[in-house]
Amino acid sequence: MTTSTTFLGLGAMGSALAAAALDAGRPAVVWNRTPHRAQALGARGATVAPTVADAVTAAPVIVVCLFDHESVRGVLDPVTAELSGRTVINLTTTTPAESRSLAAWAAAHGVTYLDGAIMAVPEMIGAPGAAILYSGSGAAFDEHRALRDVWGDSSFVGADAGMASLQDMAMLAGMYTMFAGFLHGAAMVHAAGVPATEFVTRQAPFLAAMAGQLAGFAATVDAEDYTGEGQQSLRFTETALATLLRATAEQGVDPAVLAPVHDLVVRQIAAGHGEHGTARIFEEIRRTR
Amino acid sequence: MTTSTTFLGLGAMGSALAAAALDAGRPAVVWNRTPHRAQALGARGATVAPTVADAVTAAPVIVVCLFDHESVRGVLDPVTAELSGRTVINLTTTTPAESRSLAAWAAAHGVTYLDGAIMAVPEMIGAPGAAILYSGSGAAFDEHRALRDVWGDSSFVGADAGMASLQDMAMLAGMYTMFAGFLHGAAMVHAAGVPATEFVTRQAPFLAAMAGQLAGFAATVDAEDYTGEGQQSLRFTETALATLLRATAEQGVDPAVLAPVHDLVVRQIAAGHGEHGTARIFEEIRRTR
Ligand SMILES: NC(=O)c1ccc[n+]([C@@H]2O[C@H](COP(=O)([O-])OP(=O)(O)OC[C@H]3O[C@@H](n4cnc5c(N)ncnc54)[C@H](OP(=O)(O)O)[C@@H]3O)[C@@H](O)[C@H]2O)c1
Ligand SMILES: NC(=O)c1ccc[n+]([C@@H]2O[C@H](COP(=O)([O-])OP(=O)(O)OC[C@H]3O[C@@H](n4cnc5c(N)ncnc54)[C@H](OP(=O)(O)O)[C@@H]3O)[C@@H](O)[C@H]2O)c1
Repeated sequence: MTTSTTFLGLGAMGSALAAAALDAGRPAVVWNRTPHRAQALGARGATVAPTVADAVTAAPVIVVCLFDHESVRGVLDPVTAELSGRTVINLTTTTPAESRSLAAWAAAHGVTYLDGAIMAVPEMIGAPGAAILYSGSGAAFDEHRALRDVWGDSSFVGADAGMASLQDMAMLAGMYTMFAGFLHGAAMVHAAGVPATEFVTRQAPFLAAMAGQLAGFAATVDAEDYTGEGQQSLRFTETALATLLRATAEQGVDPAVLAPVHDLVVRQIAAGHGEHGTARIFEEIRRTR
Repeated sequence: MTTSTTFLGLGAMGSALAAAALDAGRPAVVWNRTPHRAQALGARGATVAPTVADAVTAAPVIVVCLFDHESVRGVLDPVTAELSGRTVINLTTTTPAESRSLAAWAAAHGVTYLDGAIMAVPEMIGAPGAAILYSGSGAAFDEHRALRDVWGDSSFVGADAGMASLQDMAMLAGMYTMFAGFLHGAAMVHAAGVPATEFVTRQAPFLAAMAGQLAGFAATVDAEDYTGEGQQSLRFTETALATLLRATAEQGVDPAVLAPVHDLVVRQIAAGHGEHGTARIFEEIRRTR
């Protein structure tokens, strides 16, 4: 029989993770601060543990999906002794530094630590397309493949426990920025009576296609060569963005999303790089101030 | 025999437009301020006109692709009389207000006016995937289908001459914002030693997939109903963005691109909408200040 897995935290995501394990025929032990949230999983065959200590001692692998870093520390600290010799897979969203501090705490107490970042919503867990990044213990990643596979597509991105979270956040930064950029454009046309639902039929495929340009930017940035063939110059981009900002103002739309992009370009031109490629704004962004 | 088409402006884009017409067997009359730029097209069979007036009177349709609005006015104003009764297709990048002012000028002088916005680079003209938006005279759009088709996929987006340019700019605003968001994420992981070329292998497909979420935002925005099922709340998004900004700071990366998105969310929460869907930042962006 498959070994049990313990799940701490049965919010929307924790419940989805435990349910996927049950659906795959894996025994699950579940615990939640507010007990009634465990009932549905209990009805589906999970063992409901009354305390964290009971939950932790019932299985060799503890999957943690709580609200944030503080709640993880709040739940795990009191059971440090019980966790020794076991594996914690922490799928709570935390910053890279928080993940690293938890990994250090685990190492100090004989706990194997694997950090995970879920690039999906609960409804996607167990279905194709749910991606989870992992970092920390490579041995734990390898050993628990069968468990990982019930949730989605896994990638191991480094022994530094903060790496999964860092890559997740870098990806989400791009996503939220893209969402805001879309809403900026939708506001521009909406002011002229074009519904967002009409605009999106062109904009969504256009942005998906333009994502194809990013590999070129990446190669430029890694090579630190902003003078190569076929790059759109910062000066050209500045003219384009200035025009877009004029049109934004004409439409009475707040330039909050777009103006900072223009500023980055202007700053790089002021630094003397006007004829260099537009990917050079990377140099402006990565500069600590 | 097919009627001639006149091309004013033989920069990178104007030359590509004229060349595509010649390649399709359509006679072309060409003019450029700096004459030597017309030579290559002349060698390919175009008639090189010595003056703007000669070029304009040689054909019923005048395709204009100059640097900006000012250069268009500078070239067309002196030949206003000659343009009467003809059609101008202006593919120069201009703001919506500039396009409308040119349409008004055309109407006042008996010139049929079709405005176009090219969503492609010169190398793409004549190949599948080159998209051009048009607005202004619907009759001219219909009549000159054979000409439009040699350049790429055409869409007519409205009788308001400014509409093509507006939709183009709204789309480019989203594109440049997405590019900047990508570079922000690349800077975050780069600071931890992850090459941008590695990051992009996950980020480009992720952003392309997330463009699939935009249709949902569009429907929400049009319905002005930010309380519907399944919307990620502003409060949830605020927590996520605050975490991303902390991680950004940890990596020593400039928050210029991401901080304004967080600000928009914070402003909507301050206005009392924390439990509403995140698409509601549209309301913040479209508000004129
Ligand atoms: N939902 C998503 O789309 C998604 C996607 C990717 C990642 N994640 C991450 O997954 C984690 C969980 O998200 P969720 O959607 O499941 O959130 P949720 O539905 O709000 O659930 C939060 C869970 O954390 C528990 N909790 C909060 N504070 C606690 C404390 N101080 N002590 C003990 N337990 C505490 C809650 O217990 P109670 O029931 O007692 O309140 C609940 O089990 C978060 O880090 C989130 O960022 C979520
Ligand atoms: N290239 C692209 O990827 C692209 C994409 C979409 C839209 N567009 C738009 O297409 C238009 C042309 O772009 P392009 O790439 O062809 O630019 P370009 O290569 O710089 O050519 C500019 C053209 O404008 C002419 N011109 C500039 N100022 C003039 C003036 N005051 N009087 C008369 N002629 C003048 C130039 O003539 P001289 O040769 O005498 O200087 C040249 O023919 C622009 O509005 C641009 O935004 C370009």
